[in-house]
Amino acid sequence: MTPVFLSESESAALIDDELALTAAREAFLATATGSTFPVVIGHSSVPHNRFTLKSGSAGDLVGVKVGSFWPGNTDLPRHSSTIVLLDPATGRLRAVVEAAAANAYRTAAADALAVETLARNDSRTLTVIGTGHQALHEVRAVSRVRPIERVLVVGRRAGAAREFAAEVIARTGLAAEPVDAQAGVSAADVLVTATTAREPLFDATWVRPGTHVSAMGADGPGKQELPVALYERASLFCDLPGQSSTIGEFQHTSTVPVALGAVLAGTAAGRTSDEDVTVFDSSGFALQDLTLAAALLRRSTGDTQ
Amino acid sequence: MTPVFLSESESAALIDDELALTAAREAFLATATGSTFPVVIGHSSVPHNRFTLKSGSAGDLVGVKVGSFWPGNTDLPRHSSTIVLLDPATGRLRAVVEAAAANAYRTAAADALAVETLARNDSRTLTVIGTGHQALHEVRAVSRVRPIERVLVVGRRAGAAREFAAEVIARTGLAAEPVDAQAGVSAADVLVTATTAREPLFDATWVRPGTHVSAMGADGPGKQELPVALYERASLFCDLPGQSSTIGEFQHTSTVPVALGAVLAGTAAGRTSDEDVTVFDSSGFALQDLTLAAALLRRSTGDTQ
Repeated sequence: MTPVFLSESESAALIDDELALTAAREAFLATATGSTFPVVIGHSSVPHNRFTLKSGSAGDLVGVKVGSFWPGNTDLPRHSSTIVLLDPATGRLRAVVEAAAANAYRTAAADALAVETLARNDSRTLTVIGTGHQALHEVRAVSRVRPIERVLVVGRRAGAAREFAAEVIARTGLAAEPVDAQAGVSAADVLVTATTAREPLFDATWVRPGTHVSAMGADGPGKQELPVALYERASLFCDLPGQSSTIGEFQHTSTVPVALGAVLAGTAAGRTSDEDVTVFDSSGFALQDLTLAAALLRRSTGDTQ
Repeated sequence: MTPVFLSESESAALIDDELALTAAREAFLATATGSTFPVVIGHSSVPHNRFTLKSGSAGDLVGVKVGSFWPGNTDLPRHSSTIVLLDPATGRLRAVVEAAAANAYRTAAADALAVETLARNDSRTLTVIGTGHQALHEVRAVSRVRPIERVLVVGRRAGAAREFAAEVIARTGLAAEPVDAQAGVSAADVLVTATTAREPLFDATWVRPGTHVSAMGADGPGKQELPVALYERASLFCDLPGQSSTIGEFQHTSTVPVALGAVLAGTAAGRTSDEDVTVFDSSGFALQDLTLAAALLRRSTGDTQ
């Protein structure tokens, strides 16, 4: 069987939020039975140019995502992604999918799935902390699964927050405005953090009862977006408990979070009242990449989803 | 820059012992300055179908080799290999090289490099323990770097050893015969083990002074081909000391082996007399795969080596 190659331009043309959300649901449900293996964080000869290997298997999927972060990129995005699928019958190469653009959809889809599963149905105010490339994907994906009416934007630099709010208005038609952290957090029904922070971005007391929080940024030792005081009054969820507790947000607590996949499968409880504060930590796992690549390959050959 | 894809049939047509040896020398010299990252051993949904991720960087090379071992393969080899190179300037995908056939040359080239560096110049008798696919590559590669006149073959099954000896004669023109382990080990100038053994294959007392031993098989916890008693009278060398002492042959001793790359670079001593017993352990490392892929890519575009 000849391996299939999907180039960056092909996968970028095929990806959309719906495909990404379907693939995310498949991946999170597969966490109960699939396998993921230790994450490797490596670098090129220039040590600040880093790559990450995330590998796993579930059903007929087996492979690895090579994620890269080249902070000095100017013409190209700093993050890239290459997904390698092996043929489950032979171990030979089955497909290579370049997925730099698709990767942002994949990450935002995990957030959307968490919001769809855990946030109050009447969530109308979305606050996003972070004004980078990923943040816009988060706004778009989350607003597809809840009746979001306005977006509050919190950024370290006022200019960036203003520009980002303008971009949200232009791209989504939603109302959007820059606010300070306390105003944004205290007004949020859904609060999304999408930063590379290494210390808490807000005060736990600002979070209202009933809020859902998705922490998208922490994916390595030392990273942190949320105040640990929040954990005392919140229900904690994540993608992979073992990983979230080592390289994700929950490295900063001894509380063991619940796997979102278990909530989706009905084997664990999610939100239990409109007063609950729910927190979801996304550290990212290989099965998301494998199901994404498989969905892109199906769409590229005209298979219906 | 569009990624380059070299298929299995293309790389199999391009590979030869000379290219593999040149790439191996480059890789071993690069161990002094390059980086290798933790090895991942994963599996498909069928747990005995395993894959290994070996990643690293050196100079303008950065990437990962996905090795797979599907023991139930009948029409295809059980081992496959896919090498992924990233663009050092951007982190984007640079090339994918399928290298199942080439991988056997790459592994044998490490052995040939060790023999060229450590074995006596007048080595004429090569004994190989193991009659699998890899063993024939070892015979061919080693006989290119020393004046080998006869090959002694040791196998668990007499029929397999006879067939293998006949194949050596047919493929290399060298004299070859099946022998028992004691006869083979005690007559060897160069002794190569290429098995999946989990306990010693011979008695340390059988090894003559002046012998060079290359242990090619151990690449995981619990694997072992050599008797530990041999280490007391031998000089120990390997590809990567840290790796050899955890998943290679030297997991069974506390003696720290010398990196072959340091001998090649002239910063460590190799053989010091014709009476030395030298032992080289190959556990395999990513830089071998990265230099191999780069050399195959250069040859595919007609670049001179």
